[in-house]
Amino acid sequence: MNGMDLRRSLQLQIDNKTKPLGALGRLEELALQAGLIQGTQLPEIHHPHIVVFAADHGIAATGLVNPYPQAVTAQMVLNFVRGGAAINVFCRQHGIGLKVVDAGVNFDFSDTLQGRDAAGLLDEKIGYGTRNYLEEEAMSREQALQAMAAGKKIVQELAREGCNCIGLGEMGIGNTSSASLIMSFVTGIPAEECCGRGTGANEGQMETKVATIRNVFRKHLPAIAGSPDALTILQHVGGFEIAMMTGAYLQAAESKMIILVDGFITTAALLLAVLIDRKVLDHCIFSHTSGEAGHAKMLQYLGAEPLLNLGMRLGEGTGAAMAFPLLQSAVRFLHEMASFESAGVSREQEVAL
Amino acid sequence: MNGMDLRRSLQLQIDNKTKPLGALGRLEELALQAGLIQGTQLPEIHHPHIVVFAADHGIAATGLVNPYPQAVTAQMVLNFVRGGAAINVFCRQHGIGLKVVDAGVNFDFSDTLQGRDAAGLLDEKIGYGTRNYLEEEAMSREQALQAMAAGKKIVQELAREGCNCIGLGEMGIGNTSSASLIMSFVTGIPAEECCGRGTGANEGQMETKVATIRNVFRKHLPAIAGSPDALTILQHVGGFEIAMMTGAYLQAAESKMIILVDGFITTAALLLAVLIDRKVLDHCIFSHTSGEAGHAKMLQYLGAEPLLNLGMRLGEGTGAAMAFPLLQSAVRFLHEMASFESAGVSREQEVAL
Repeated sequence: MNGMDLRRSLQLQIDNKTKPLGALGRLEELALQAGLIQGTQLPEIHHPHIVVFAADHGIAATGLVNPYPQAVTAQMVLNFVRGGAAINVFCRQHGIGLKVVDAGVNFDFSDTLQGRDAAGLLDEKIGYGTRNYLEEEAMSREQALQAMAAGKKIVQELAREGCNCIGLGEMGIGNTSSASLIMSFVTGIPAEECCGRGTGANEGQMETKVATIRNVFRKHLPAIAGSPDALTILQHVGGFEIAMMTGAYLQAAESKMIILVDGFITTAALLLAVLIDRKVLDHCIFSHTSGEAGHAKMLQYLGAEPLLNLGMRLGEGTGAAMAFPLLQSAVRFLHEMASFESAGVSREQEVAL
Repeated sequence: MNGMDLRRSLQLQIDNKTKPLGALGRLEELALQAGLIQGTQLPEIHHPHIVVFAADHGIAATGLVNPYPQAVTAQMVLNFVRGGAAINVFCRQHGIGLKVVDAGVNFDFSDTLQGRDAAGLLDEKIGYGTRNYLEEEAMSREQALQAMAAGKKIVQELAREGCNCIGLGEMGIGNTSSASLIMSFVTGIPAEECCGRGTGANEGQMETKVATIRNVFRKHLPAIAGSPDALTILQHVGGFEIAMMTGAYLQAAESKMIILVDGFITTAALLLAVLIDRKVLDHCIFSHTSGEAGHAKMLQYLGAEPLLNLGMRLGEGTGAAMAFPLLQSAVRFLHEMASFESAGVSREQEVAL
């Protein structure tokens, strides 16, 4: 069946379910999209996973952009591995597998994690955090490529295990700044309009953050303007977790997965993936609008209409986890709802019982 | 602990979880509300249920307000009992118990349903549909009281079985018209602004529907204006399923349940319950904004901010079912997330690892 025939037959199947035409709203769009991604009239979700990429940012050590100390990145990674973070709770609730990746945290986990706990952390460390992009490039071209390759590899492995639905999450003190810079370079929206309060900057911290980001933008503009591709942007103002997610998105689309897009930082990585291959967008379900200022504009730029708006701004993939049961509902109604014919229900203006 | 102390200690507990302050957005409000309703720092959801009330409407036989024939009400009840409707799918998905109530359907189910299927339908039939309110009162005062009492009894029984979280749903060809009239009488918003397309009226059908509802409004205005209480409104322009839901809401609050409010018709019943006892609102979580025009205005009137906006307009309690996992997430993060102390995570501007 070609794409157009499949779209038509999926729509017919949806319209034959015992409900008024279109009455399941966005769930009907999700069902259609899931069917088109999987190339089938009866899409199924198998081994859904959320992968949380953690890394540190050189800028964080300056204290100019973040109220929390850099050490919180490592502390939260330990919290993920031990099951105490929000994303752990929501993954357990929905039967979503969770992988945690050290993409470049400024901490040696081997000293702290042993046995089963150590096995719960994928070691893809590119370095002990990026360099401070206020002074130099965040990473080398080789590191950016290495990180993207690691992201692809992780997703390939999940695909091999049968996973066909993925959400990406992140943790990294200072990474909203990197995301704001990426957003500004990709979309052309002024850097200050791409900034939000991150983990909770107050008024004064916010002024410093915006001024810092403006300075970083100006410093790297000449290099990036000359070669405005994803790799160059990552190299100058990216993060290891963001580069890894860029690779992961590309591979997830390549592996025909359904992708649940989370919040501000994960969408910044998606902007880069889309620069490389626009087809990634066909695989994306936009989970929610983050409470982080800037995310709504990013989504608008992508023409995305997210499912949820719950004022969440935690990262970790928590928004993706919240949207997962909606995707499940969409797939389940395709499988389980009766049709007008099978249930003996009259259509509009037909005869009665 | 008094209410104010409980609110403070719940908020403290929420703020101590390993996340930036307020980063779980609406989920934090839900956790707080659940705790306040149950009077505990660790609220729990037990035996959640959705109860679908079905009944017919005299006006439907005229064909003036509905594109589907009246027989669809009974056909859909059979679909519910046999497990093929959308609400069946979503209740199975989320482990929500489903009760289906014949509140007054114009059909004898005893001829069709046998054995286990018959046991799946609660018989609380008040009559074979209401009378046509274009010509006379929809029901007698006694019928309205009887229906409200039946709704209370059903919820009492669920409470006795340990259920502490309930969503109400409905099915009844023609019942958006009754809901529009109730909305107009309660809120004072002109009847035509309370009308939507229901199951899918086209342009011409819509004009007829609006004109009909205006006529009904004018006919019953003198009687209701003289005594604008819930019972009088139900008697003149209500439906048996709506009256039963009004009683069910009152009892659910009385039984200290968390109430998931669904769409247009169920919220019309809530308007009446709130007229009787405003405290019901403290128990309500507003699940979604229905695609049915008028629902958004109803919610605004109640000062409600629903969790979801998925363009759904199916009724049956399907919006409530979609919101249920969000409530679960709120309760689970209270129980399962680590605190800053327990996880050894630094707070803002504290020292590092």
